[in-house]
Amino acid sequence: MPYFVVGVIGAGEYADERAEAHAFQLGTLIAQAGWAVLSGGRDAGVMRAVNAGAKQVPGSLTVGILPDAETPAGPDVDLVIVTDLGSGRNNLIVLTSQVVIACGRGGPGTVSEVALALKAGKPVVLLDVDPAAARFYQELGGRLVAAVKTPEEAVAAVQRIAAGRVH
Amino acid sequence: MPYFVVGVIGAGEYADERAEAHAFQLGTLIAQAGWAVLSGGRDAGVMRAVNAGAKQVPGSLTVGILPDAETPAGPDVDLVIVTDLGSGRNNLIVLTSQVVIACGRGGPGTVSEVALALKAGKPVVLLDVDPAAARFYQELGGRLVAAVKTPEEAVAAVQRIAAGRVH
Amino acid sequence: MPYFVVGVIGAGEYADERAEAHAFQLGTLIAQAGWAVLSGGRDAGVMRAVNAGAKQVPGSLTVGILPDAETPAGPDVDLVIVTDLGSGRNNLIVLTSQVVIACGRGGPGTVSEVALALKAGKPVVLLDVDPAAARFYQELGGRLVAAVKTPEEAVAAVQRIAAGRVH
Amino acid sequence: MPYFVVGVIGAGEYADERAEAHAFQLGTLIAQAGWAVLSGGRDAGVMRAVNAGAKQVPGSLTVGILPDAETPAGPDVDLVIVTDLGSGRNNLIVLTSQVVIACGRGGPGTVSEVALALKAGKPVVLLDVDPAAARFYQELGGRLVAAVKTPEEAVAAVQRIAAGRVH
Repeated sequence: MPYFVVGVIGAGEYADERAEAHAFQLGTLIAQAGWAVLSGGRDAGVMRAVNAGAKQVPGSLTVGILPDAETPAGPDVDLVIVTDLGSGRNNLIVLTSQVVIACGRGGPGTVSEVALALKAGKPVVLLDVDPAAARFYQELGGRLVAAVKTPEEAVAAVQRIAAGRVH
Repeated sequence: MPYFVVGVIGAGEYADERAEAHAFQLGTLIAQAGWAVLSGGRDAGVMRAVNAGAKQVPGSLTVGILPDAETPAGPDVDLVIVTDLGSGRNNLIVLTSQVVIACGRGGPGTVSEVALALKAGKPVVLLDVDPAAARFYQELGGRLVAAVKTPEEAVAAVQRIAAGRVH
Repeated sequence: MPYFVVGVIGAGEYADERAEAHAFQLGTLIAQAGWAVLSGGRDAGVMRAVNAGAKQVPGSLTVGILPDAETPAGPDVDLVIVTDLGSGRNNLIVLTSQVVIACGRGGPGTVSEVALALKAGKPVVLLDVDPAAARFYQELGGRLVAAVKTPEEAVAAVQRIAAGRVH
Repeated sequence: MPYFVVGVIGAGEYADERAEAHAFQLGTLIAQAGWAVLSGGRDAGVMRAVNAGAKQVPGSLTVGILPDAETPAGPDVDLVIVTDLGSGRNNLIVLTSQVVIACGRGGPGTVSEVALALKAGKPVVLLDVDPAAARFYQELGGRLVAAVKTPEEAVAAVQRIAAGRVH
C-alpha cells in the first residue's frame, strides 16, 4: 500500500508564530497517524515547521517538492523532489496529496494551491483561516472545503477523509 | 518590439451570458489597441468569446495556451501553444501576460490564475467581479489589483499599465 | 486557420558559424512559406539566427518559448511565451510544433528535444547532423526522421509534411 | 540527512526480459545500499521491475513520479508523486536523482531522460546499452557518462559517485 499523503501549505517567510506553531503540531499528528507529510520543502515558515514537527516521530516520512534546483530544502525533509517549475510546483503538491491542509491564510501561493486543489477535486481543510476567506473558498469548493480551528480538528477531518468520507 | 500581451481569464463551460458578452467586447478592444490576446485557448466560455471578439479586428493576434494535445483549440485562435501541463498551464498564461484581466468571477481555475498572477507580481484587472471576491483579492495583492465594471474601463486600466503605471 | 508552426532547435552559446548561417536561411525560408517560426527564444546561437532570418520577411511571426522570466528574449522574437519550466520547456516546443527541424547536432538540450518530438510522434528533420547521430535518431524514430544537407532541402521536407505526407 | 536518490530509467511496455531482469536486480542492490529508488512509477517494464526488486529489501523506499493522475502506479511504489506533466515529468525524474541509471537502451522517453540528465549535469550510468548509443552519449556528456555491463557494476559506479567522485 502506498503512503497516504497529506499536503500542508501556508506562508513561507511571512508566516506568523501562530501558523508555525500550528504547523509543528500538525506535523507531529500527521506523522503519528502514519501518513506522509508533503510540503513545498523550503527552509521557511509553515514548511519548515511542519517537517520539524513530523520528525519528532520515529519512522515518519517528510517529502518536499522544491521550486527549482537552487532553492535549498529544509533540514527535516527526508525526500527532496526537485522540480524546475517555480510556482508550477504548486499543482504537483495538490495532485500528489490525498488531502490538503491550509495552515493559516497564507499569501498568493497558498491561495493558488487551495484553488488548484479544488479544481482537481481534492478535499481541503482550512486551519485557522479568517471567516471571509473561508466563505470565499466554500463558495468555490462547496463540500470539498472544511474550516477548523485547531490542528487536532484538522487531523480529525483528515481521518474522516481517509475513511472515505469527504467532510 | 515584441507584442504587449493581455491575458484574459474566466469561466469555460460554466460562463454566463454576461461574462461572454464582456469577453467578446474585451477581445475587440484589446485587438484595436494593437495588443495580443492570450487565453486558455479552449472552445468554451470566456476563452471562445474573447478570441471571437478579437478576430473582428483585421491584423489581430490571438494566442491560446492549451492544457494538453487532446483538447481542441477554439476556431478563432491564431497561434496554438500546446502544453502537457493540465492546470499547470495557468502559470504560463499569467507569466506570459503583461497584465491579466479576470472576466467575471470564474471558478477554481480562474482563482488560481489570479493568485499566480499576484504571486508573480503581475497587475490584475477584475471585470465585473462581486465585491467580496474583489476584497479578497485586494487584501492579497494590494495595488496590483483594480476592480472595474465595464470592458471599456478594463482596457483603460490596461492602457495605464502599458504606460508604466500600475493602477 | 491557425498558423502552421515550425520548431527550429539547435545550440545556443556553443553554436558554430555553419549552424547559425543555416538557421538564418531557415528562418527566411520558413517565413516566406507563411509559417510561424518557433524556437527557444533566447538571444544566442541558432535561436537568435533563425529569428533574425525570419524577420527579413515582412509579415513573419516569430515565437520564442523562454525557460523562465529572468532570461531575456532575443531582439527578433515577436511573441514571447514565458514559462517557469527550465528544460521542461523543451517539451512545449516540440508539442507546439507541427514539425521540428534540428539545425546542427546541438548539445544535450537539442538531443532531448529530438527525443521528446519522436516520443510525441512529431516529424523531425535533421539538418546537417553527422551520420552517427542521424543513424541513432533513425533507429529511434524510424520514418518520422529525415536527414538533409541544406536549408532548402529542410524546407522542402517540411512542405511534404505540411501536405500530409510524413517524409 | 535526506535520502540519496537513484533514478532508474528504461523501457515501459516494450522492455525486453533482459532489461527487466537487470532492473529487478538493480532495485534490490540499490535498496540494500540504503538509497531511495526513483522511477517513472508506472506498472510496466523497467519501472515495475526495479520497484519489485527494491521491495525485496525491508525498509526500502520506492518513489514513482507519474505522468498524470489517470495513470495507475505500479504495486511496489511506496510514494506516488502525481504530476500533470506528461513527458515533462522526465525532467523531474532526472533533477530529483543524484545519479541516473539507464537500464537497457529504451525508447525516445529514455533518450530524452539521459539527455536532460546530462544537460542538468547529472552523472549517468548506462547499463547494457549498445556501443553506438553509448558512444553517442559519451560524445554528448563526456565524463558524466559511464557504460557498464551488469547491475553490480552499475551500483559500484553509483557508490563511487555517492563518494563524491564522478566516474
